[in-house]
Amino acid sequence: MHFNRFEETAMNAPDSIFTPAAGHAPDAARFAELLAQSRQPFPASTKSYLSGALHPQLRVPVRDIALTNGEQVSVYDTSGPYTDPAVQIDVRQGLPSVRGAWIEARGDSEYYVGRQRVALDDGGKRGEEDARVAQLRAEAAALQRQPRRAKSGQNVTQMHYAKRGIITPEMEYVALRENGRREWMAQYQQDAARELRLAGNSMGAAIPKIITPEFVRDEVARGRAIIPANINHPEIEPMAIGRNFKVKINANIGNSAVTSSIEEEVEKLVWAIRWGADNVMDLSTGKNIHTTRDWIVRNSPVPIGTVPIYQALEKVGGIAEDLTWPIFRDTLIEQAEQGVDYFTIHAGVRLAYIHLTAQRRTGIVSRGGSIMAKWCMAHHRESFLYEHFEDICDIMKQYDVSFSLGDGLRPGCASDANDDAQFAELATLGELTQIAWKHDVQTMIEGPGHVPMHMIQQNMTEQLKHCHEAPFYTLGPLTIDIAPGYDHIASAIGAAMIGWFGTAMLCYVTPKEHLGLPDRDDVKQGIIAYKIAAHAADVAKGHPGARSRDDALSQARFDFRWQDQFNLGLDPDTAQAYHDETLPKDSAKVAHFCSMCGPKFCSMKITQEVRDFAKQQGVSAENSIAVGMQAKAQEFNKAGGDFYIPIASDTTAR
Amino acid sequence: MHFNRFEETAMNAPDSIFTPAAGHAPDAARFAELLAQSRQPFPASTKSYLSGALHPQLRVPVRDIALTNGEQVSVYDTSGPYTDPAVQIDVRQGLPSVRGAWIEARGDSEYYVGRQRVALDDGGKRGEEDARVAQLRAEAAALQRQPRRAKSGQNVTQMHYAKRGIITPEMEYVALRENGRREWMAQYQQDAARELRLAGNSMGAAIPKIITPEFVRDEVARGRAIIPANINHPEIEPMAIGRNFKVKINANIGNSAVTSSIEEEVEKLVWAIRWGADNVMDLSTGKNIHTTRDWIVRNSPVPIGTVPIYQALEKVGGIAEDLTWPIFRDTLIEQAEQGVDYFTIHAGVRLAYIHLTAQRRTGIVSRGGSIMAKWCMAHHRESFLYEHFEDICDIMKQYDVSFSLGDGLRPGCASDANDDAQFAELATLGELTQIAWKHDVQTMIEGPGHVPMHMIQQNMTEQLKHCHEAPFYTLGPLTIDIAPGYDHIASAIGAAMIGWFGTAMLCYVTPKEHLGLPDRDDVKQGIIAYKIAAHAADVAKGHPGARSRDDALSQARFDFRWQDQFNLGLDPDTAQAYHDETLPKDSAKVAHFCSMCGPKFCSMKITQEVRDFAKQQGVSAENSIAVGMQAKAQEFNKAGGDFYIPIASDTTAR
Repeated sequence: MHFNRFEETAMNAPDSIFTPAAGHAPDAARFAELLAQSRQPFPASTKSYLSGALHPQLRVPVRDIALTNGEQVSVYDTSGPYTDPAVQIDVRQGLPSVRGAWIEARGDSEYYVGRQRVALDDGGKRGEEDARVAQLRAEAAALQRQPRRAKSGQNVTQMHYAKRGIITPEMEYVALRENGRREWMAQYQQDAARELRLAGNSMGAAIPKIITPEFVRDEVARGRAIIPANINHPEIEPMAIGRNFKVKINANIGNSAVTSSIEEEVEKLVWAIRWGADNVMDLSTGKNIHTTRDWIVRNSPVPIGTVPIYQALEKVGGIAEDLTWPIFRDTLIEQAEQGVDYFTIHAGVRLAYIHLTAQRRTGIVSRGGSIMAKWCMAHHRESFLYEHFEDICDIMKQYDVSFSLGDGLRPGCASDANDDAQFAELATLGELTQIAWKHDVQTMIEGPGHVPMHMIQQNMTEQLKHCHEAPFYTLGPLTIDIAPGYDHIASAIGAAMIGWFGTAMLCYVTPKEHLGLPDRDDVKQGIIAYKIAAHAADVAKGHPGARSRDDALSQARFDFRWQDQFNLGLDPDTAQAYHDETLPKDSAKVAHFCSMCGPKFCSMKITQEVRDFAKQQGVSAENSIAVGMQAKAQEFNKAGGDFYIPIASDTTAR
Repeated sequence: MHFNRFEETAMNAPDSIFTPAAGHAPDAARFAELLAQSRQPFPASTKSYLSGALHPQLRVPVRDIALTNGEQVSVYDTSGPYTDPAVQIDVRQGLPSVRGAWIEARGDSEYYVGRQRVALDDGGKRGEEDARVAQLRAEAAALQRQPRRAKSGQNVTQMHYAKRGIITPEMEYVALRENGRREWMAQYQQDAARELRLAGNSMGAAIPKIITPEFVRDEVARGRAIIPANINHPEIEPMAIGRNFKVKINANIGNSAVTSSIEEEVEKLVWAIRWGADNVMDLSTGKNIHTTRDWIVRNSPVPIGTVPIYQALEKVGGIAEDLTWPIFRDTLIEQAEQGVDYFTIHAGVRLAYIHLTAQRRTGIVSRGGSIMAKWCMAHHRESFLYEHFEDICDIMKQYDVSFSLGDGLRPGCASDANDDAQFAELATLGELTQIAWKHDVQTMIEGPGHVPMHMIQQNMTEQLKHCHEAPFYTLGPLTIDIAPGYDHIASAIGAAMIGWFGTAMLCYVTPKEHLGLPDRDDVKQGIIAYKIAAHAADVAKGHPGARSRDDALSQARFDFRWQDQFNLGLDPDTAQAYHDETLPKDSAKVAHFCSMCGPKFCSMKITQEVRDFAKQQGVSAENSIAVGMQAKAQEFNKAGGDFYIPIASDTTAR
């Protein structure tokens, strides 16, 4: 886990000091209503699906935004079936299966009688079942699934297939999804001189013009990308995390108090993916976590990650030194059977590195890291995660759970950035990556944290050097420490930069970082800040088509298509609300002026004059300009030298 | 002016389409109350003053933050006398003079009968006085000052003095202010290995360990820094804008409808500087702008910038082609006499460059740029600003008004970034810089705007190449275009990067950019985002002592000194409010755990164990670690292996 200690441990506030916010009490009806709201399609948007060629059955979602000028812009869509009004969803039944038939068809896995659930899985003390937990579990009995695992001797990871030259449906799905509808982008890429001027700097990435299924296969085979896709999570819409794909973002959620409802937990998830979370980590702790995880996984179209050591720690009553390999192993299997797609495993926190943190300003801030450090100190032994790493691989490959190798020794403040402890662990993560790859287990590497701007690139360079291009997955990093309350911004700066340099997924930070538990709006603020960072990185890298959405929005701005400007943005609701504060009348939505210049003077209109003129004259040198300008001046003055355009008396836009 | 067309023109919304927000009506009492609130000192903070050596009369403000552990942290303070409870302030009388005696003592300027005010200055049509405007003006009659200007043949610019080897009080003031109280920073810089690891990358800047008055003089003399300081604005606390000083930020404000009050306009200013605006631009337009400017300048401890072409355009009824050099010249003198410290002048928008914008996606988006383009087209003539540039210099040097050479052809979207139009103008700005310097007129250069991350550095490189290290002053830049409603974040990314690369001042962007008029909270959001960007740049450049505040806050975080953590942040109010949502009890403010981990398990405590142990053993190699760890393990288990620390029963922190 690579959130700072606060995020990382976001949900186990002791009740004795925790005062619930207003409305914190369970209210299934209220959350069902919120969920219904979060299912509304975005303005002017329709979900549609792309079909496969190798695998014609594929239905890859995109969101088509209808512009007022007849154009259609299609964007990557993380929101799953929730924003498709044609799909009936009952959170107590779970989402329809996307991948079930593909998994079945491969014939290398089988249903089996899974591990028996015990009361301890949901935090029951000494095995005593908590009545409320039992009730919550019973309410969602329909979410129980019989688990699958690889048949004896088989390996069901996407990496395993990729290395054998097999292009899975998941791989073609990813290729289609990454490309999106390229047709509309083409019209924004016709000017060769502009494209040359704006050509991205990929910083060593190898991004092709078109993502082919074979390219995806090759990237997965060489470990440069992962497709988190547990065979027990057939509900996901496959996605890729890799340096040569779009930069992704992760949002964290965690369970509320034990009195929460399935509607509340699922609504959190749906809210996060609505705003663009590509992955979600479930950081729940305490009671009801096994059951909460069932709720989330069964209703999630995006991959779900967890930190199994958290649950294992619960099972030993919160006493780190009581952790054992059997308890941890059992927890891995428990979660793998439920369908978790990637596990954060802090196997790089080795005994010998712990002293390297002694002189730090803020020591060890990873919760997982500190748990393992405590265990190592207490037992004076090498970490059982490190020693049992191949055993862990053996489990991972039976379900295709991906590694997210945790950076337990990441810096907790700028002052501790890029130190020996951090880089010693990183080198070990590289070593473990090669072991995981030997088992064909998909692997990504977690990274910091807190890093001043001028030290960010070194993180990427070292990661590439030690970890053989396994995808990097960083938290921020925060570039400064003096912005509590605004750490989503302090970290979005670092996230954008490291995304450009090659990080494949960015873990979000909310405004509550270091201070408290994020609420619904904090989650949205964090996600939007990270969508900005990820998109800025895509544009800088020159990801084909990434800039087209900016161009479409800028064109709408220039054309005074206000509604299109809102709808093409990351958050149409807020953009429109801000605009309406100043110009609430519908007529203003199609007015050929903005709220500030007004109709009398408009720089955009002047620009249009310049453009028309230059086109007409075919000017290219100062001389012809001079002549042209003279003609233009006459024409311009003749026309009255005014740019007033009457306001349309009514709107056609909405 | 280098805001996009919306910011740039933020205040002349036509009344016919403008619906005032609730409470928009003038309410002097309400704003007087707000102003009183904005005068409250920050939590645990006291304003104190540093004294000069060369000029012992100097009183240079710093904000001392008293920490709960007895330490004191001093920070740069832009808020002026407003946060000093010892200073009586009456906005209808204006601030006390800081520099009056210094200016007088130089003996090279004199009072004179200034230009006569005319009704047109306040937007009166055909010279008719507006009754409300006249009333507002009368209410603040005490703000009228007789203007000063250079005696015949004299030059009163800081650059002129600097070139002659004179260290003015303003220069020593700046030196003291930039250094602050270095003593407290030293304790955070004692670890040589850490300082080496964290050493900044100045990207070619030449930042000394200590800023001496002589260094300031030299920087001003060579044009690498400016001290905006009109002799008719003696109220300012001098500050420097230059690559070798702390990165500064600018906030824009503008007048409200003609019905506003002096309290409302001054409160906007005080609000902006409270949160850290180093400079403020008054972008008022329409009626009452002359009078509003009197209100603002007389009550401003920070330099005030304007865009004189806006007022000149008002004087010709909004018809750009009716602008003339005499009208513009008269406006410059009007504003120079009032005390404006820097003028944005778009003298680089030359006739020959206009066609270069023809193929752009969003053309000319600078309001000043489009005004001049319109004028040039209408008259088919070279810009009168360009042709009269030396005449303008002659005015500037009589008052020490600094140039902010406007980038009228800056890109309005990512797609137009770094194009021929932009760089052609930049080269002209470099040429004009040398002319200004010939007259010893202080000069900075405005920059974009909208630039993808990978193209930002080129802006700095070109600016340094063409403009001879004159300070760069950029808007953002915005790194993407798809975040309307969040452009403060999209641009803070670019601002932080270009600040690191060498930009001396960053013009803020608010969340309302491109959408509407910023309200009070928007202004704060924009300022905080830009304080983050500026500080991230200072840290990356390795500005001496910049990181110490981060270190102090991180140390407070590690020590669980919650109140110190809030108070050391950029916005203590918000940090505390967020924290209190989760942990409202006072006892939690001194609890040795955070709201998320709770008392039972705390990674910080583990870190302390690691530290104590390493210290005790003097470990440095794996072997000794192994031995040490064994001892530690025994000790640790003996102690019960628990890190619970009882909660203090009451708070001592607040």
